[in-house]
Amino acid sequence: MAISSLTGCKEKPILKFSDGRFHAVADWVAEEEPLEIRVTHRGRSRAVAITMRTPGNDTDLALGFLFTEGLLPPGQQLGGGAREQANSVEMQWPAELPLELARVERHSYTSSSCGVCGKTSLEMVYNALPFPQDPQQMSVAPELLYQLPDRLRRAQQLFDATGGIHAAGLFDTEGTLIHFAEDVGRHNALDKLIGYGYRHDLLPLTDRLLLLSGRASFELLQKAAMAGIPFVASVGAPSSLAVELAEDQGITLCGFLKGNGFNCYTHAERIAQPNGKF
Amino acid sequence: MAISSLTGCKEKPILKFSDGRFHAVADWVAEEEPLEIRVTHRGRSRAVAITMRTPGNDTDLALGFLFTEGLLPPGQQLGGGAREQANSVEMQWPAELPLELARVERHSYTSSSCGVCGKTSLEMVYNALPFPQDPQQMSVAPELLYQLPDRLRRAQQLFDATGGIHAAGLFDTEGTLIHFAEDVGRHNALDKLIGYGYRHDLLPLTDRLLLLSGRASFELLQKAAMAGIPFVASVGAPSSLAVELAEDQGITLCGFLKGNGFNCYTHAERIAQPNGKF
Repeated sequence: MAISSLTGCKEKPILKFSDGRFHAVADWVAEEEPLEIRVTHRGRSRAVAITMRTPGNDTDLALGFLFTEGLLPPGQQLGGGAREQANSVEMQWPAELPLELARVERHSYTSSSCGVCGKTSLEMVYNALPFPQDPQQMSVAPELLYQLPDRLRRAQQLFDATGGIHAAGLFDTEGTLIHFAEDVGRHNALDKLIGYGYRHDLLPLTDRLLLLSGRASFELLQKAAMAGIPFVASVGAPSSLAVELAEDQGITLCGFLKGNGFNCYTHAERIAQPNGKF
Repeated sequence: MAISSLTGCKEKPILKFSDGRFHAVADWVAEEEPLEIRVTHRGRSRAVAITMRTPGNDTDLALGFLFTEGLLPPGQQLGGGAREQANSVEMQWPAELPLELARVERHSYTSSSCGVCGKTSLEMVYNALPFPQDPQQMSVAPELLYQLPDRLRRAQQLFDATGGIHAAGLFDTEGTLIHFAEDVGRHNALDKLIGYGYRHDLLPLTDRLLLLSGRASFELLQKAAMAGIPFVASVGAPSSLAVELAEDQGITLCGFLKGNGFNCYTHAERIAQPNGKF
């Protein structure tokens, strides 16, 4: 692989300790840089957010962030598109569309759309969902599920190079990888993926599976719910609030995909022939 | 282990798929709930931040957050202490101490103290550091380093129960675990650890090693630098900006601690008898 041509990673001289001694080698680390997301509305340019991200697909990241935070309704054409610079991206906001920055301004610490108790957090998510719930049934073979991490990993150039980057992958029910995105931040990887879907007018993603390379937090389930994704699988563990959001929103949530197994936390009805009940 | 008495995790009914079939079992997931950090200053109560965290040690989390974000100078006695409620913690701010909320208010997306380019981010960190740089030499045996993850893991009750929680551990140069903290958010785990140090007047932590259970990002190195920690080791990979901050600030940064090896990215002079050079 022509690694020097990969955006998103940087070469660093390191000392590798193995077999009881140090070896001086060159290694690749995942690139992390700030990105300022800006919006121009009625001639006025305003900063919406700053995130630490891996450069690349910045417009998708901005679209996914603005959509999953509830600022950008689905199906908008952002006239003039986006202007990407080294560490900022500027979106042209339709003049007729309100820009409700107060939605993100109160989140001074995390990007989670959360209130002050878990219940409020969940209700805020439900109230903001842009698509009606779709009880569409899909049927996924359990043996397919634990093969997905390998399929995503094989596509991940940056992980190969750096050993340390998150990914979000979108699969169809046959297990074909449709699109994926990588980033040092797992919420950024998912924003890039959903932003890609937004840009290509693919939302809601009602017949797709989402695979997360790490753990499944509330924030990631909230983004999946915004995009209408009915099935979320993660290589790592889910949090309690992620399980509760999935349960309430009718999302199938699986975790710990490894070896020949996994755990299903909610809505097993989308998995073929489950022989057990919760 | 009397798991039902563990705060920080919740029991959920799940379907475990293994050996080709589903098994209905009870499992434990890491708890995730929002925490609102509030400050009362001159009789006025104000919300500073909301973070998704694992309940427990909320006062340490608030102290660590307020300190590492540069709002709280070192060595302050917060008269009256903190008032913890289910999902909020209220700190009593000294009347004579300014409360510069603008420092965090502009970070509408991440908590990183970042500007719009990596260079600015680094400079903002350097300008905010509360302790003078301490070139104190420590000497850590390389064989000790890769034993630290096991030592931290053995202390981690919540990881045992849930398989999915981050930890930050503080060690002395002999490899003795001094204190550790767990959270679904890795920045929260480190805030809890540094907040503990703040509360016990242990800062700066100039003779300590910090072990991170996951990857090492810019944000985590920024917090370590604020606390004066000279040596950071992570089980996972570092990002480019984490390496650059460590290099500039004289912090030894090691990653990929596993098996009998690790990578050293910066300032190997604190590791005993390095036989190699960058």
